[in-house]
Amino acid sequence: MSFTDLMTFQRETSALGQVAGRLGWDQETVMPRGAAPQRAEEMAAMASVLHGRRTDPRVGEWLAAIDDTTLDDVGRAQMRHIRRDYERTQRLPADLAAELARTRSQAHLAWAEARKAEDVPGFLPMLEKMVALKREEAQALADGGDLYDALLDDFEPGAKAADLQAMFDALRPRLVALRAACLDKPAPAGLSGNFDEFAQMKLARMLAKTFGYDMAQGRVDKAVHPFSSGSGLDVRITTRTDPADPFNCFYSTIHEVGHACYEQAIDEAYLLTPLGQGVSMGVHESQSRIYENQLGRSRAFTGWLFDQMRDAFGDFGIADADAFYATVNRLKNGFIRTEADEVQYNLHVMLRFDLERAMIAGDLAVADLEAAWNDRFAVDFGFAVDKPSNGCLQDVHWSEGLFGYFPTYSLGNVYAGCLNDAMRADLPDLDAALAQGDTGRATKWLGDKVQQHGGLFEPRDVITRACGAAPSEAPLLTYLEQKFGALYGL
Amino acid sequence: MSFTDLMTFQRETSALGQVAGRLGWDQETVMPRGAAPQRAEEMAAMASVLHGRRTDPRVGEWLAAIDDTTLDDVGRAQMRHIRRDYERTQRLPADLAAELARTRSQAHLAWAEARKAEDVPGFLPMLEKMVALKREEAQALADGGDLYDALLDDFEPGAKAADLQAMFDALRPRLVALRAACLDKPAPAGLSGNFDEFAQMKLARMLAKTFGYDMAQGRVDKAVHPFSSGSGLDVRITTRTDPADPFNCFYSTIHEVGHACYEQAIDEAYLLTPLGQGVSMGVHESQSRIYENQLGRSRAFTGWLFDQMRDAFGDFGIADADAFYATVNRLKNGFIRTEADEVQYNLHVMLRFDLERAMIAGDLAVADLEAAWNDRFAVDFGFAVDKPSNGCLQDVHWSEGLFGYFPTYSLGNVYAGCLNDAMRADLPDLDAALAQGDTGRATKWLGDKVQQHGGLFEPRDVITRACGAAPSEAPLLTYLEQKFGALYGL
Repeated sequence: MSFTDLMTFQRETSALGQVAGRLGWDQETVMPRGAAPQRAEEMAAMASVLHGRRTDPRVGEWLAAIDDTTLDDVGRAQMRHIRRDYERTQRLPADLAAELARTRSQAHLAWAEARKAEDVPGFLPMLEKMVALKREEAQALADGGDLYDALLDDFEPGAKAADLQAMFDALRPRLVALRAACLDKPAPAGLSGNFDEFAQMKLARMLAKTFGYDMAQGRVDKAVHPFSSGSGLDVRITTRTDPADPFNCFYSTIHEVGHACYEQAIDEAYLLTPLGQGVSMGVHESQSRIYENQLGRSRAFTGWLFDQMRDAFGDFGIADADAFYATVNRLKNGFIRTEADEVQYNLHVMLRFDLERAMIAGDLAVADLEAAWNDRFAVDFGFAVDKPSNGCLQDVHWSEGLFGYFPTYSLGNVYAGCLNDAMRADLPDLDAALAQGDTGRATKWLGDKVQQHGGLFEPRDVITRACGAAPSEAPLLTYLEQKFGALYGL
Repeated sequence: MSFTDLMTFQRETSALGQVAGRLGWDQETVMPRGAAPQRAEEMAAMASVLHGRRTDPRVGEWLAAIDDTTLDDVGRAQMRHIRRDYERTQRLPADLAAELARTRSQAHLAWAEARKAEDVPGFLPMLEKMVALKREEAQALADGGDLYDALLDDFEPGAKAADLQAMFDALRPRLVALRAACLDKPAPAGLSGNFDEFAQMKLARMLAKTFGYDMAQGRVDKAVHPFSSGSGLDVRITTRTDPADPFNCFYSTIHEVGHACYEQAIDEAYLLTPLGQGVSMGVHESQSRIYENQLGRSRAFTGWLFDQMRDAFGDFGIADADAFYATVNRLKNGFIRTEADEVQYNLHVMLRFDLERAMIAGDLAVADLEAAWNDRFAVDFGFAVDKPSNGCLQDVHWSEGLFGYFPTYSLGNVYAGCLNDAMRADLPDLDAALAQGDTGRATKWLGDKVQQHGGLFEPRDVITRACGAAPSEAPLLTYLEQKFGALYGL
């Protein structure tokens, strides 16, 4: 009954978790279409094996027998993760877990059909069932505490909805105002023309390397939805191409590279242990966002990218690097969260955060969701949702029971704002390097300050330690108001 | 304690087996090189899960509790497979299984280094250890019977070395004579020139479809060594290209398609059960060989392939379809089993069969292997082995403990000879269809007679039922002597 035995067990569990994750990668990239029914059984078998290990009574015995005070900092951090996961699993009744798993796949199908048919009522019964089950889950987990916090803890351990609410309350009015002011001004030129998809992929791969992604322990493929997958020595990303919109390809790539570099930079000593992966969704998103936005969409870096695009595609109708910078950062009215720019993105998230919190609290009936969504959208964005697939049916999350996930996107943006301020203070000449396409100093700073630690510290503490101050929305707001104020001449 | 419970358990085991297999596919096709150390842990974790299920005491309880006579034919066949596997696993001491697994990876590394360095003595200590362990394994499994038979049973259930020996004794002298007679004659023209690799892959994919491979439940990729992988709804193949040798690509593809079509054609009712995969290595090889040789290298089919190659590559220096047929079936002196033609291939196999049987029996010391190999090679092939990588170090099998595997290659050829005779008798006009590139009647015949049954019948019985007579080497010999007699004017 030693810590070593527990870690040997955990290491095998982590390895199996990586295998299950790689099946997901395979499914989205290379799996033959007709294999889907068999794949569902393969995934279920892996899930069952992993569930068996998470609930293995030996883990409880090990946890009871090991004296944390005999361990070093790393050992205690491992124990913290293992204990949290085990206790969480123990609190969840087995039949509720099974019912959630079943409902998840049914609700996902119902959502996909409802979205295609623009049929909100067709999705409501499954969503009602899902919300009821998630409330039940939250009650089992919360132990008398806040229900939403209990769910949030799955994605952002230690975060509290009340703190997020305060942060978002400070962000929202100023982002609404900034958005309106920008859209009141003449829009910068957009891209037009046809951008060869093979050349897009070539440049995307070059961008991945430019941001430090190690291709010897990763690969870039095309998929319908860009994602990053895996930890340790095998971290793969996907991207997509659209002949009319090369930015979609390039910035999806840089975003996923941010996630992937985080995983690749974690201390090798944590390989295949609970510390060997990104510590939370929020911290993960801080890395993808700072790569994508504060670095990738900066005036300095876009100047270099402009040259690369001219090399790849010839003259594509944008006169110079300043105009290109404005094009890259152009605001547009739009319904879709995943297509939103830096200014508007968080408004999409806050809308979902408020609605899902109200559903979990029981303050918003599922039947009233569509009206609540459309009302709120009109208030923040100033125009009306035209159809459900552009409104409350646009995201997959709720159908999969992912309540508490959305706010981590904005938390990531807030963290990225804090990190950017601290990094710029430490690296005053960073823009000169970025203008040469050299991200090395920035990614090294992030690697040293954030990425290498994996799960060693609590999520909020990672940011506090990196920045020397507790996280706040202020740096992000200042950054956005300065950047877009200058771009739009406000 | 019902048959249904056992089958539910087996179904999950089969699904996990498919996952482990797909990891192997991933490793050989898309895995980033640097992921290898982590992958080894992932594979070991999957192996450990699968071993745990194969030795799960519940399986023993189920087997004891279920009354086979209450089951239908399919149920009894499932029980036969499950019981054989469980009893085999029970007979093998756990520490021997672990030692074999460890030695396998060490010996594999030692073999790869020794082959590169042409250093037989460098490999001998690991090979000695492996042979000793395999003898120990065979003793545990044989229960007083023949040691080699006990190992053979892993690859060809029910086969006996003495029967194979009789078959091979009848084959060998006539193949040695046929080989010598052909090589005594002027050689047909070989291919020369450069064959675009992209066009090779395009034609390879077309050939795969021509032979009935279902791309909606499969895919074709490039790998160093061609292989087929997976069962049920996800059966993938690989091939390779060499600009100087398009036949390597095309016939490797057709060969692997034979394996893959077997898996794809198995009755859907057997999906993810012990019956849901090819019944033995020998029967599997009979399908790959009949697709590749009796169909793919026939005069009729090569006439069609000649036209396809001219469409793909233009004039490549072969005058007409008759000359092309001779080129496809050209004999050459060579050291390497995997590059051998239809006449010589079995001679390579028989050499290995005799040597490995002698090692397992204790009649050939590992230290004497190289001399024994080289002596035998000179007798059958008429020239001397020039270096170990062209001799006893050429194959990976022994380093991985695969003793008893080699003879199934020739058994597959023998079975293919029997099936070809029976198929031709049933389909007298087959050549007219093959000459149009239409393999449908042949593959339907094989699907109906052999493939659909999966593991329902014992391997030898599959062939007997399909052909209406017990397997014999005579049809293969007659086929080879007629085909090559005509080609070489003997």
